[in-house]
Amino acid sequence: MAMFMDVHHGMAGITAEQLKAAHAADLAAQGEEGVEFRQAWADPDSGTVYCLSSAPSREAVQRVHERTGHPADEVHPVPLQA
Amino acid sequence: MAMFMDVHHGMAGITAEQLKAAHAADLAAQGEEGVEFRQAWADPDSGTVYCLSSAPSREAVQRVHERTGHPADEVHPVPLQA
Repeated sequence: MAMFMDVHHGMAGITAEQLKAAHAADLAAQGEEGVEFRQAWADPDSGTVYCLSSAPSREAVQRVHERTGHPADEVHPVPLQA
Repeated sequence: MAMFMDVHHGMAGITAEQLKAAHAADLAAQGEEGVEFRQAWADPDSGTVYCLSSAPSREAVQRVHERTGHPADEVHPVPLQA
C-alpha cells in the first residue's frame, strides 16, 4: 500500500463538524476501494483541506472522494516520509 | 500551540535521504522558535513536500525552514483535524 496526500481547494469556511462529517463519510466508503484514510486537516481561511491515506492507487483515493461528494483537486503519492 | 501544514514546491527528484536530512535539520533548529515538526511527506515526481508541525505562529514555522535553507512556499494553519 502506498501513501497519498490529497488536497481540496475552495473549502473556505469549512467547520469542524463539516470536516468530521466528510472524513466519516470517506471512512464509511473506503472499504470497497481498499483505501485507509488516516487523517484530515483543514484551513478554513484559505479553504484548503489535506487528507492522508494509504491506498492501492491514486485513482482509488479519488473514487472514494467522488463517491462521498467531495472530489480532490490534487492527489499526490507521497512515497517518502520522515 | 496551533497546527500548521506547510508546502514546498520545486523539489522534484528529492530522495529519501534528502528528505530525512532536511527534516533532521528542522528538528535540530526548531527549539528556539518553539516549533515541533511532527512529520514530513514528499512526492518526488511532482516535487512537493508537506510538513506538519505544531507551532506558536506561521512565522515561527517559516523562520525554522529559512534557517535550515528550505523556506516553505505556503504555510497554512490547520486548526481543524479529523
